[in-house]
Amino acid sequence: MPELRYNLLVRDWVIIATGRAKRPHDFIKAKKEIPPIPEYRDNCPFCPRNESLSPPETFRLGDAKVWRTRVVPNKFPALSSDEEIERKTDGIFNSVSGFGVHEVIVENPRHNTLIALMSDKEVEDIIRTYKTRYLSLSGKEHIEAIIIFKNHGPAAGTSLEHPHSQLIATPIVPPQIRSRLEHATRYFDTTGKCVGCFVLEQELKAKARVVIETDGFAVFMPYASFVPFQMLVLPKRHMASFADINDSEIFELASVLKIALSKLYRGLDNPDFNYTIRSIPVHENGEEYFHWYLSILPRLTQPAGFELGSGMFINTALPEEAAEFLRNIKC
Amino acid sequence: MPELRYNLLVRDWVIIATGRAKRPHDFIKAKKEIPPIPEYRDNCPFCPRNESLSPPETFRLGDAKVWRTRVVPNKFPALSSDEEIERKTDGIFNSVSGFGVHEVIVENPRHNTLIALMSDKEVEDIIRTYKTRYLSLSGKEHIEAIIIFKNHGPAAGTSLEHPHSQLIATPIVPPQIRSRLEHATRYFDTTGKCVGCFVLEQELKAKARVVIETDGFAVFMPYASFVPFQMLVLPKRHMASFADINDSEIFELASVLKIALSKLYRGLDNPDFNYTIRSIPVHENGEEYFHWYLSILPRLTQPAGFELGSGMFINTALPEEAAEFLRNIKC
Repeated sequence: MPELRYNLLVRDWVIIATGRAKRPHDFIKAKKEIPPIPEYRDNCPFCPRNESLSPPETFRLGDAKVWRTRVVPNKFPALSSDEEIERKTDGIFNSVSGFGVHEVIVENPRHNTLIALMSDKEVEDIIRTYKTRYLSLSGKEHIEAIIIFKNHGPAAGTSLEHPHSQLIATPIVPPQIRSRLEHATRYFDTTGKCVGCFVLEQELKAKARVVIETDGFAVFMPYASFVPFQMLVLPKRHMASFADINDSEIFELASVLKIALSKLYRGLDNPDFNYTIRSIPVHENGEEYFHWYLSILPRLTQPAGFELGSGMFINTALPEEAAEFLRNIKC
Repeated sequence: MPELRYNLLVRDWVIIATGRAKRPHDFIKAKKEIPPIPEYRDNCPFCPRNESLSPPETFRLGDAKVWRTRVVPNKFPALSSDEEIERKTDGIFNSVSGFGVHEVIVENPRHNTLIALMSDKEVEDIIRTYKTRYLSLSGKEHIEAIIIFKNHGPAAGTSLEHPHSQLIATPIVPPQIRSRLEHATRYFDTTGKCVGCFVLEQELKAKARVVIETDGFAVFMPYASFVPFQMLVLPKRHMASFADINDSEIFELASVLKIALSKLYRGLDNPDFNYTIRSIPVHENGEEYFHWYLSILPRLTQPAGFELGSGMFINTALPEEAAEFLRNIKC
C-alpha cells in the first residue's frame, strides 16, 4: 500500500511507493565486468609521487612523502578565493562573484581502496582532516557555509577512482540550508526541543529503522527517507556545528561510518552513493536548536519529472525493510 | 569567472561555474549506436492494437481504434485512487495513505516519434489532453495538486520508448510548491506585482536569454538556470492555473513547445530531458500573484553531493551562451 510520509527533521513529504516497490536485494545492480583497479596509477593526480599534478596542498596528515590524507584546491573549482567578493544588482538580476573555496580531500594514498575497506584509523584520519579544514575555513572572511561531501561512482557524479571527498565553502547561506535552520528554530521556539535530538530519540524508540547504535552515535533510515537506503548518522550529543566534534567522537564516527558504508558495499555490491555533512552555517550559533548530521544517499534510482516538478521524492523501498536488510549484513 | 546568481522566480541561488564551464556543443553526448526504432512494437502497451496490455483508458482523443492520444492509469502507480484517504499520526510519524491518481498520457499512436518531430496539430492534441485531465481531476475530492511531467530518456528516469507523459495528483500540496506559492504571495504583497509577470518582462527586456518569443508566449533560459539549457515556457497572459489556458493559447503553446524541443533535439542530438508544468495547487485561487509555466530540464549533468548537501545547483553552462546557441538552431 503506497503511503505519504512526513519528514519532521526537514519538513518534507515523501511518497513511499510500495506499489512499485522492490525488495532490498532488487537494488543490487548487475555490474559490468570491471578489470581490477591497481593500487597506484602514474597518471592519477591523487596518487603518491604525483603530487605535482595537482595544485599545492592546503593541508596534510603525515609526511610530505608518506602522507595519510592530503587536501588540495580543486583544479576546476566551482568557486575560487582568487575572486574578489563583489555583489551586483541590475534590476531583478542579483549576483555575487564566485568567491569561495573548493577543495579535494584525498582520503588515502592507495588508489584502489574505499572507506568500506579501510582501517578504523584511516577513516579517523579522514574525519580529522574534515574537521581541521572546516575549522580553518570557518575563520575565513566572507565564508557563510561549508559543505563537505563525497561522490562515489558515476551515478553519484564522479568518474574519479581515487578515494576522495570535497569541500565547498560559499559566500552565501544556501536557501535550503537557511530554510531548514528556520524550521529548526521555530520547532525549538514551539516545543523547547531540538528537532534533531527529538527525531533521534523517537527513531531509537521505534527501533525498526535503526541500523547501528553506539554510545555516541546512531545510524538510521529516516521514517520518510528520500531515496532507497538513505541513512542518517547522528551524534547523540547535541551539537549544532560539525566543528564541535571532539576526539573521542571523531574516533567513534569513523568506526560507525565505516560500518555503515561496509554494509552498503557488501549488501548492495558497491553501489554509487553520495554523503554530505549537514552543519549549521558558520556565523550562526544555533547552539540550542540545530543538530548536525551526516546523510548517506545511495544513487540507486533516478529522480525524474515528478521530483523536478514538485520537489517531492518517490522512494520505492520501504525504510523498515531496507534497514532490516542492512542490519543483517555482517561486517 | 564563476558567479552566484539569484533566481527571483523561485528564490534560489545557483552557482554558474564558468571555471568548469563548457561551450554549448560540448554538451552533445556521444551516442551509442542505436538500431532504428520501429513505428510499432507488438509488446508495447502504448502501441495501437495493444490497448488491452494497459489498464482501461480514462480519456481518449479520437476513435477507439484510430485514436490520437490516450490516457491510462499507470500500471505501477506511485499513488492510487483505490486507497481510502486516511491520516495517521504516531508521535512524530505522520502519514497519509497513498491516495491519488497516477496516469500515463500516450502522446501519439506512433512508437517512434517525438514531440520534436510531430506536427503542430499532434502536439496540440497532447496539450489539450493535459488540460482535459487537469480539469477533470481538479474536481476530484481530496486532490490538492496536479503535476504533469514528461521523462525522456534514461538519464531523465525512463527507458520506455513510446512517447508518453505522466500526471500525478497528490492528496497534499508538496512543500516546495507551497513554499514557492508563499514566495509569490509575499512578492505580490510587497510590490503589487506577479513575480512571474515581472521576471518575464525583465527577461524580454534583457533579451540575451530569450530563445523564442510569440504573441502569447516566451521561452527563455532563466538568468539563474538550475541546469545547462534549462528553458521556461511562460504564457504572457497572467494565469495562475494551467487549467485556464484557452484554445488559441493551446494552439500557440503547442507550436512553441515543439520548436523549443526541436531546437534541443537538433542542437544537442536528442538529449535526455524532463519537462514539468508548474501550476497553482487546485484549491488555491491565487488569481493575482501566481503564474503557471512549463519548465524544460535537459539532463546533461548529474547533480552530486554538493547539490544534495546544500539544495543549491552548480550549472556549468552560461545561460546567455546556451540561449544564443539554441536561437541559432534552425527549426
